[in-house]
Amino acid sequence: MTQRPGEFALIADYFAPLAGEGTFGLKDDAATFSVEPGHQLVITQDASAENIHFLDDDPADLVARKALRVNLSDLAAKGARAKCFSVALGLGEDWTEEWIRQFAQGLREDIDQYDIALTGGDTFKTGGGMVISITAIGEIPRDSYVARIGASPGDQLFVTGTIGDGALGLLARRDDLSGISMQDRKYLVDRYQLPQPRLEFAGTLRKIATSAMDVSDGLLGDLVKLCDASGVSAELVLSKVPFSSAVKTALEHESNLLETAVTGGDDYEILFTVSPENIGQLMKLANEARIAVTCIGEITSGEGISVFDRHGEKVEFPSLGYDHSGARN
Amino acid sequence: MTQRPGEFALIADYFAPLAGEGTFGLKDDAATFSVEPGHQLVITQDASAENIHFLDDDPADLVARKALRVNLSDLAAKGARAKCFSVALGLGEDWTEEWIRQFAQGLREDIDQYDIALTGGDTFKTGGGMVISITAIGEIPRDSYVARIGASPGDQLFVTGTIGDGALGLLARRDDLSGISMQDRKYLVDRYQLPQPRLEFAGTLRKIATSAMDVSDGLLGDLVKLCDASGVSAELVLSKVPFSSAVKTALEHESNLLETAVTGGDDYEILFTVSPENIGQLMKLANEARIAVTCIGEITSGEGISVFDRHGEKVEFPSLGYDHSGARN
Repeated sequence: MTQRPGEFALIADYFAPLAGEGTFGLKDDAATFSVEPGHQLVITQDASAENIHFLDDDPADLVARKALRVNLSDLAAKGARAKCFSVALGLGEDWTEEWIRQFAQGLREDIDQYDIALTGGDTFKTGGGMVISITAIGEIPRDSYVARIGASPGDQLFVTGTIGDGALGLLARRDDLSGISMQDRKYLVDRYQLPQPRLEFAGTLRKIATSAMDVSDGLLGDLVKLCDASGVSAELVLSKVPFSSAVKTALEHESNLLETAVTGGDDYEILFTVSPENIGQLMKLANEARIAVTCIGEITSGEGISVFDRHGEKVEFPSLGYDHSGARN
Repeated sequence: MTQRPGEFALIADYFAPLAGEGTFGLKDDAATFSVEPGHQLVITQDASAENIHFLDDDPADLVARKALRVNLSDLAAKGARAKCFSVALGLGEDWTEEWIRQFAQGLREDIDQYDIALTGGDTFKTGGGMVISITAIGEIPRDSYVARIGASPGDQLFVTGTIGDGALGLLARRDDLSGISMQDRKYLVDRYQLPQPRLEFAGTLRKIATSAMDVSDGLLGDLVKLCDASGVSAELVLSKVPFSSAVKTALEHESNLLETAVTGGDDYEILFTVSPENIGQLMKLANEARIAVTCIGEITSGEGISVFDRHGEKVEFPSLGYDHSGARN
């Protein structure tokens, strides 16, 4: 059996070098951080488990970055600036030091990319597979939190980026997607393995969104949640939903993947509502932030959501979104 | 197979009723909280795993409370007031709704007892045993964080409460402890299953401690860590270490349990240092807070620690503390 280092050695060798200010090199019981005057904090915690949220042969650096980014995506959707995070890493039976090294390297890349501090955490044995529990903290000017509650009838419904890349990327990753080029396959798998939290859009959301959430469990199911929280309904036009060229190609080849694209998870785009008089300003700000935004429907009064095709015919989906008890907020 | 509820139903039924202000009934992506002017935050994250940190037949309410309290103990040791926490609950293969109900009930009791808010979290499947990852946040007046770094030669070494109850409580829980009464057994098992974080001592620590940490991985091993962090050494007198009458009885029956008592984990008392001129004030404040504190040695210059028996003879312990890669900060 290979000799494997203990917890303190792992922390000292791989995690302490990542730690930010106020963390005492991860040698203390806790860490401390301050808040800008006039600001408040936003907290979110999403866990990732082996063979539920990631595959056991996914590269460890990408596992780490995705585990962090799904939390950053929540902060972005609330209009927050990402500030710091802590990570509890549950080691499965088969863990190796090389996996940890790559995992820490992945965190390092995103710490640098997002200018976010690691405050500390914990390593422990799970007795099963790997588990990663990350808590991320963001900061927003006081009273500018963008909640799911707040959409009103008449508000226009928008989404950032493109939808369905993550769900089809998972299919591609499992070699369950045919009719696409190697390049499209790579694009989709990248989108599945390394989501792009829309932090650069947080400021625009604070200024202009009446409600927002990140799309993590499928566009339609998440829209139902937004409507439930706001006490409204929505009409969504399927032909307006923005798809990447890779998804369009896959849909041309296999049209019933449309349901997967709009109900599958792992988009990490932002679904938000804007009152009609602010749409001009939205377009200006989105353009400045270089984020594509697309109007996909409208908020109405009532309950639930209605989905229409390009001919105005109502489309029914047997299952709106999924709940693998690993569903993400 | 029994029908088990999905994630959203679990959250709505059991966790949403526990949620505090700024959490939108756990229906949002995140939660928000504010910080008192002139204060900063303290963050800690410790996970608990089935059959590593708790036994699969431990009552779920006590599992929940201990998982929370080990984090509150970290906050207490840093001089912080407990403010809020989030919990990622990893469901093992065999989870039942009744276990979740009891788990949530345990959290409810401690939310009330410690006046702390649940901000949110996540439930997910682990594919193995249960995993609980809690992140707790506390608040302290600016620049009053009590670090492990700060002990100086000449400082007196103190500990709150009694030592060894947790380690012997685990033995008692496993029926591996003989020669004690049922009442002592119950006391020790309680101390193992339901630690008492010393939050009421946090204010005293802020005023008077030159360094502090909570004792979670064994008194001697944790003292080594405190000394390493502060760049000092310590002389500890074993006969001064405070033991409960239950531990004393067990030691009379089986003297080699002394090593277990001073190197075993799960004390959740506070180890701290005080400069000699402040000892009078310490005793006054500890008395007001109704916390027993005991001087167990002195900080010296050098490295590592020296342990002496009542006759001044040096005692060697083969292993100072333990590292189950579930060791706690």
